Amino acid sequence: MNLLLFAAAERRGELVEIRDRRLEHVRDILGSRPGDTLAVGEFDGQIGRGEVLRCDEDALELRVALERDPPAPVPLTLAVALPRPPSLRKLLQQATAMGVKQFLFFGSARVEKSFWQSSGLRPEALRRQLWLGLEQGRDTRLPRVAFARRFGDFCDRALPAASAGASLWVAHPEAERACPVALDRAATVVIGPEGGLLPDELERLEHGGARAVHLGDRVLRVETAVVALIARLFPSL
Amino acid sequence: MNLLLFAAAERRGELVEIRDRRLEHVRDILGSRPGDTLAVGEFDGQIGRGEVLRCDEDALELRVALERDPPAPVPLTLAVALPRPPSLRKLLQQATAMGVKQFLFFGSARVEKSFWQSSGLRPEALRRQLWLGLEQGRDTRLPRVAFARRFGDFCDRALPAASAGASLWVAHPEAERACPVALDRAATVVIGPEGGLLPDELERLEHGGARAVHLGDRVLRVETAVVALIARLFPSL
Repeated sequence: MNLLLFAAAERRGELVEIRDRRLEHVRDILGSRPGDTLAVGEFDGQIGRGEVLRCDEDALELRVALERDPPAPVPLTLAVALPRPPSLRKLLQQATAMGVKQFLFFGSARVEKSFWQSSGLRPEALRRQLWLGLEQGRDTRLPRVAFARRFGDFCDRALPAASAGASLWVAHPEAERACPVALDRAATVVIGPEGGLLPDELERLEHGGARAVHLGDRVLRVETAVVALIARLFPSL
Repeated sequence: MNLLLFAAAERRGELVEIRDRRLEHVRDILGSRPGDTLAVGEFDGQIGRGEVLRCDEDALELRVALERDPPAPVPLTLAVALPRPPSLRKLLQQATAMGVKQFLFFGSARVEKSFWQSSGLRPEALRRQLWLGLEQGRDTRLPRVAFARRFGDFCDRALPAASAGASLWVAHPEAERACPVALDRAATVVIGPEGGLLPDELERLEHGGARAVHLGDRVLRVETAVVALIARLFPSL
């Protein structure tokens, strides 16, 4: 936890009181005591410093000074074939820590149906990964996560809505063109499932305006590929 | 497992016989049967295809055709303050999958002493992570892993030896200069421990020729930062 996040509703003036897992973390893991200072952030707001006034069995009390905006978001929408649950968790947490603010998970022929039944898709489970990512990356703005289980729905409605105004790419190992480096504008990248998109799925995406690009010779886990992709597209953020 | 690796000693002409965990994986996870084809690679050699001749309780037999070199290595030496064991595993596996061939782990004031007692530092444990990374990235060349527990030894001997002829950088959050993008030559990057290098440790590295660069505003786990760093420095590999 590099940043202690709290909600605007938890703050009265410059005083913040916390009584849930964050108290336990600050007390038992960080070992904070009155007088110590923590990096803090207000959910969807600014970041700054908090002075610990009280930290005991019952509550953590802080006097906070919010000083500056969180880091700039990465203007990238990740449209990813729903991965297996452990990959989903890592992907959400790492990409959120790096500043991604929009995720769109879709179904396609090679996405295993069981993935859609995972408890990791419940709102509170998703929120937990996003929250951990924000704490890691010292950010306050919660990303949006959307799902389009039917591939047709993804292509016809969800993807165009999510990628309006952005350049649109689809990662494809056999593409002739390499994925661009260091973009200066918003982008949406479609990443297929383990085993890849079917030829007609790729065609449908290209028909919708997505340009196929390869990410190099190597085969990476989706959560690793996504981190590499963000760094490649937006190295300065 | 995207590539079945075998040793030159396991091949007789074009026939390969395998009886360990790789047999179990191919039989029970991949469900391969005689007539199927697998991507294969010879340790430190070429990659190609293997036709399954036999796959049962006792052995996997393949007829292999080695056709091409593995992907180009990434000319980056990662000199990393020894991280906690789970981070070490992820870092080794992911960076190996991306093509890194040289790791140098060092001790410094903020590296916890207990990390040096981890079973993850045993040769067979290291080799397992490297092997998994090679299988993931479809590569055959095993990286080298070295350790310099004493910071003085790291600065005076291990780092100069590992970085000879390469540009040398040290990641430092307060550096004015940003880490470069898309290098066309070999590089060594020093990455400090959680909590950072001490000012005099940084100074000693800079005195040795390392230039301090920052990796952006965000605080990432070391295994995530390393993936982003590789993609940023060598986006075409």
